[in-house]
Amino acid sequence: MKKLKLMFILLFLFSMPSLFSQENEQLYLKKTVSGSFENVTTKLKSLLKEQGFGVITEIDMDVKIKEKLKDVEMKPYKILGVCNPSFAHQTLQIEENIGVFLPCKAIVKDLGEGKVEVVMLNPSALMGMLNKEELVKIGDQVTQKFKTVLEKL
Amino acid sequence: MKKLKLMFILLFLFSMPSLFSQENEQLYLKKTVSGSFENVTTKLKSLLKEQGFGVITEIDMDVKIKEKLKDVEMKPYKILGVCNPSFAHQTLQIEENIGVFLPCKAIVKDLGEGKVEVVMLNPSALMGMLNKEELVKIGDQVTQKFKTVLEKL
Repeated sequence: MKKLKLMFILLFLFSMPSLFSQENEQLYLKKTVSGSFENVTTKLKSLLKEQGFGVITEIDMDVKIKEKLKDVEMKPYKILGVCNPSFAHQTLQIEENIGVFLPCKAIVKDLGEGKVEVVMLNPSALMGMLNKEELVKIGDQVTQKFKTVLEKL
Repeated sequence: MKKLKLMFILLFLFSMPSLFSQENEQLYLKKTVSGSFENVTTKLKSLLKEQGFGVITEIDMDVKIKEKLKDVEMKPYKILGVCNPSFAHQTLQIEENIGVFLPCKAIVKDLGEGKVEVVMLNPSALMGMLNKEELVKIGDQVTQKFKTVLEKL
């Protein structure tokens, strides 16, 4: 009986890391494209708008960091905060503290040599972590729209 | 043997929801205080600055939502994006896509009747989800600073 109990505990412990790393893989939606940093950013914003998402915040993280840490080298790294008021309102009705994850983020990273990567947080994965079925349904709709944006980029 | 296998599977399935709900409880750092929405926001910003965090974005989510959804009723709900460039830089060195979670968020919610709630995402819980030990260490330092902010609020 003791041996069986131990086996149960071991199985549980071993299953945990795989569970989390699986989540991590799905956590980001990404695409690398050729083009200038500025052009990709402009196209991304226009595609987001097409899908109903306005860019409501824009942070040049490389600039912010270099302002304070003078000797740091960092390629252009922009964080866009994107929001669809209707989806935002729907999620807030279900989870009033979802604001800590709003607005949704899209990162534009200059990889150098004419390559730019766009990374978005996968809303389905995020909503899955919050463990509310209704949130996952909304998250899936947003994910579909973000995937369309990346396909068209 | 078949029965044992089934028991293992059942145990695994039953352990999952408790795992996630435990995480959810720790996901937010919160405090409700008495005062006006404006005064609490001002004090919060000043305390964040004291701990090394600048407010780099500010969204009045209630205004954004009401701009588009005219007939929605919503109390003041502010989302502050707060950032410490040194911590941001450290996390980016470990996980280059951490930008989808930056800047850290603090929500200020008007509960009515002179009560205001401040909610922050618990950086330790978030970093724990990303399953990287070095990120958790930085997350814990940020969590400690956010807890100090809420204590002093």
